Amino acid sequence: MNDADDDIPSATRSEPGEVGLVEPRDFITTEPFTFDNGQTTPGFTLRYETYGRPNAARDNAILIFHALSGDHHCAGIHSLNDRKPGWWNNLIGPGKAVDTNKFFVLCSNVIGGCQGSSGPSSIDPRTGKPYGITFPSVTIRDMVRTQKLWLDSIGITSIYAAIGGSMGGMQVLQWSIEYPSFVKRALAMATTAREGAQAIAFNEVGRQAILQDPEWNHGYYPKSGGPRVGLAIARMMAHITYLSDASMDRKFGRKAVAAHRKPSPASDVSELSMEGIDPVAPAATFDVRFEVESYLRYQGQSFINRFDANSYLYITRALDQFDLAATHGSLEAAFAEVQAATLVIGFTSDWLFPPDQNRDIALALLRAGKRVSYAELSTDLGHDSFLLESPQLYDLVRGFLN
Amino acid sequence: MNDADDDIPSATRSEPGEVGLVEPRDFITTEPFTFDNGQTTPGFTLRYETYGRPNAARDNAILIFHALSGDHHCAGIHSLNDRKPGWWNNLIGPGKAVDTNKFFVLCSNVIGGCQGSSGPSSIDPRTGKPYGITFPSVTIRDMVRTQKLWLDSIGITSIYAAIGGSMGGMQVLQWSIEYPSFVKRALAMATTAREGAQAIAFNEVGRQAILQDPEWNHGYYPKSGGPRVGLAIARMMAHITYLSDASMDRKFGRKAVAAHRKPSPASDVSELSMEGIDPVAPAATFDVRFEVESYLRYQGQSFINRFDANSYLYITRALDQFDLAATHGSLEAAFAEVQAATLVIGFTSDWLFPPDQNRDIALALLRAGKRVSYAELSTDLGHDSFLLESPQLYDLVRGFLN
Repeated sequence: MNDADDDIPSATRSEPGEVGLVEPRDFITTEPFTFDNGQTTPGFTLRYETYGRPNAARDNAILIFHALSGDHHCAGIHSLNDRKPGWWNNLIGPGKAVDTNKFFVLCSNVIGGCQGSSGPSSIDPRTGKPYGITFPSVTIRDMVRTQKLWLDSIGITSIYAAIGGSMGGMQVLQWSIEYPSFVKRALAMATTAREGAQAIAFNEVGRQAILQDPEWNHGYYPKSGGPRVGLAIARMMAHITYLSDASMDRKFGRKAVAAHRKPSPASDVSELSMEGIDPVAPAATFDVRFEVESYLRYQGQSFINRFDANSYLYITRALDQFDLAATHGSLEAAFAEVQAATLVIGFTSDWLFPPDQNRDIALALLRAGKRVSYAELSTDLGHDSFLLESPQLYDLVRGFLN
Repeated sequence: MNDADDDIPSATRSEPGEVGLVEPRDFITTEPFTFDNGQTTPGFTLRYETYGRPNAARDNAILIFHALSGDHHCAGIHSLNDRKPGWWNNLIGPGKAVDTNKFFVLCSNVIGGCQGSSGPSSIDPRTGKPYGITFPSVTIRDMVRTQKLWLDSIGITSIYAAIGGSMGGMQVLQWSIEYPSFVKRALAMATTAREGAQAIAFNEVGRQAILQDPEWNHGYYPKSGGPRVGLAIARMMAHITYLSDASMDRKFGRKAVAAHRKPSPASDVSELSMEGIDPVAPAATFDVRFEVESYLRYQGQSFINRFDANSYLYITRALDQFDLAATHGSLEAAFAEVQAATLVIGFTSDWLFPPDQNRDIALALLRAGKRVSYAELSTDLGHDSFLLESPQLYDLVRGFLN
């Protein structure tokens, strides 16, 4: 496609192997949309990004789906000053596993989210005020149905591949079920067709941390404020479930905070490196003592600056309520109409959506007589393995797409 | 010992197999006690219970140690109206694995606790006000040294066996190290000689939930109030780590709340049993939806009525700081002076203090040339397995004691 390069505005000309500068766009519809719970909004917005170009046949579209705390910005940078590219930039780009020289890659922020798509923090045109918790409750199927309206609006009539991990994998499965003739290939990783009790339990504790924060105020709070403490607690806890015991031990072990860490006035103990000695604090200080503590506190603090607490409540509910087997009678019945060739990838150290929950998806597709493969990648990096550098994962994705 | 039965006040006469009515007692000393961090209190109180009787030789004492949220009441009942006996009543009693017909069983509430022993919620005699976070920070070794003063005061000069699980197991190990000639047998289960990063991480999130609760107020709050929300969140999360994915799935799975559950005015969805259908809520309700949610909420609520938030901060810090290898140079060096015969028991599904951390203790004792056995019980009940009905566990304990 080199001959087409002259058409690219120089601002978006890619570095070799990099998507380069990208700009989010909005799909805005004023057609009323009725959610699974029966409530209607006067239209909605989905914010999205695209990388690469549609081919003449318009049959090279790859749809990417983000996880709970992700967004539409999965590759490239928004400014030359950006310190971090999109969240799946290691997978998506010219010559990468998802090759933007070949494919037209699209990713949108989910409905109910807070990164530009309509959600609780959006303005309700009927009132001129934020929806707050009057926004309809959202399901994975709502996410998928709004994405379909967006693709229709830009003339995408089939998907070469749908790719996602975790909640993104749920959307992949829902797409295959909802629009069977539309999806040619489905790649779901580190996901589940129904969460177990433990995953629901962790989400519930996170929701309670938000709901019980007085600043939540029944869902009505200023954009600048809100239940920041509750949201940070929810994120700290959830973040532990994205990693693994082994990876945390390797990364942090029992390392004490380093001397450069700023102490609180209450204590100078956090100044001392206590590696290899028994850390004993004076009374009245619960300052950060171990590296893993300061890492988690940072995770919690950075999250509250980019995520809306109500969206966290809505999306975790969507995760917990997703249950293809219960909705369709059985997982096999859920997949009865699927036409896509499917690849399911589980990760051995994923204890949030464990390998056997991924394997169950593949086995049900097999029983339903569908084309499916299952791969289990041996890693000790936990649930987030699907987001991390992995030549094996790249090879699996490349092989599945070509 | 039947001939001695006439000495028992009828109020404490045991039901067959049951310890029966018991009364807590207090060990109170006004001798200044210096904690590991160098701070001193003008004496302290340990609340304790005993079951069975010391024999003539006074060599039949068994010391029981409780875990983070436990207390001195490990067997029997306080009133004929009690609906629940002590927390280890299934293990301790006449004819049980820890046979109170043979042994004089003692258990105290740890220093820093809130069930009658001195801790942050106790009154500082120097000020007439609660210590709050001016109470010295507490270590496992502080717990053990205060217990030794208590045993000295009642004329116990040797321990037939020290028995504990989780934090109780840490105290067992610390006793063997601190008072080698005193401890004849040591039985530590579901424990660790040093927590991994994940266990520290979960404790830190719990502490943050408390510290960030405005009601914590830098540790100064009325007994009736305080950071109840933060403490409930901490407990809900921690409780998940005491169970296992498998046991939660068996106990709750994805069962929706039953119809008898009281709804919130905001919603009647929680009234409906949604088992087998896709639960979809109207907007604005985050009412309990799954049984596992209402179970966790109950765990959180009941905990705040019996536990002090500052004690939770102090004791989780003691757990995180416990590190025998770092304190003594190596685990093997830590055990150099141990004289007790030791039994370590790990549980296969314990992911908080996993079997390999228990095995490491036994291996280090072996390398140090000590008498030690290691048993790994196959269970899918998680960390709390040591507290639950288990004929295999009873046989191991009985065999070790006889």
